[in-house]
Amino acid sequence: MPIVSVAKMDPLLEKLQATLQREMPITTAMGIQAHDWDGQRLSMRMPLEPNRNHQYSAFAGSLNALCTITGWGTVFLLLESRGMSGNIVIRRSSIRYFRPVRTPQFIAQGLPIDTEALAYFYELQEFKGKTKIDLAVEIADAEGPYVTFSGSYVVQE
Amino acid sequence: MPIVSVAKMDPLLEKLQATLQREMPITTAMGIQAHDWDGQRLSMRMPLEPNRNHQYSAFAGSLNALCTITGWGTVFLLLESRGMSGNIVIRRSSIRYFRPVRTPQFIAQGLPIDTEALAYFYELQEFKGKTKIDLAVEIADAEGPYVTFSGSYVVQE
Repeated sequence: MPIVSVAKMDPLLEKLQATLQREMPITTAMGIQAHDWDGQRLSMRMPLEPNRNHQYSAFAGSLNALCTITGWGTVFLLLESRGMSGNIVIRRSSIRYFRPVRTPQFIAQGLPIDTEALAYFYELQEFKGKTKIDLAVEIADAEGPYVTFSGSYVVQE
Repeated sequence: MPIVSVAKMDPLLEKLQATLQREMPITTAMGIQAHDWDGQRLSMRMPLEPNRNHQYSAFAGSLNALCTITGWGTVFLLLESRGMSGNIVIRRSSIRYFRPVRTPQFIAQGLPIDTEALAYFYELQEFKGKTKIDLAVEIADAEGPYVTFSGSYVVQE
């Protein structure tokens, strides 16, 4: 699939994209776009140009923002896909930058979520109305990761 | 000192600000401004409005970008203040978000650098032409930290 394709977007992805555009304006300045959702793994894309740095590679802060919002969006879609909602907040994260990102567009993708962790996430939300989950995200190409990210998210009432 | 004061800016701070505006355009969209430099500790400020999220508090990705650039700028100024320069790159970072930032403007400030770590930073740069340093940054008010950040930076030839 060409990475500029946005035809026939998943309605859930469309809702995520509209939410970001409406409620987090800096993601529009960064050109962050919802890209794909397979029911558990979200990918989001970013263009280099507005996020370039002194080396004409992507600014670390923009790469972190892309990963942070990919994790946030994953929690948003995990909830929405079960008809749930809540106030999603990131508590902490860590990130490693392995090599500069210089492609005109690049994609951050959520890594697979452990089955038990996912069940626990939904169980807490259903029975307590608040929950939490740790998510890993990476920006990678065929040669391996550019960036690996891990974030801890909570959902509040 | 009122946080909107930019009169009589330190020439090193001015150089940092000009470098960011010229070479990292997204920092201008975020409204990031060099604020103060005491020879070792850099502070940079950010307005809430362009960085607001769905809760009308600051987007975590913007807070991370502010801390990332405060660490980057600290290395830039540590080098510049000794007439040195190099390609400054962040390798990894971790961040904790304790409570939402809702003030119209806020400041990230570098924490004091260990004397031996600083001496080692300059020694490596002088004798090897490349160096590294770990830096801590926080966004805080009188009640304590909103955000604590730790980043590992390297300077390459």
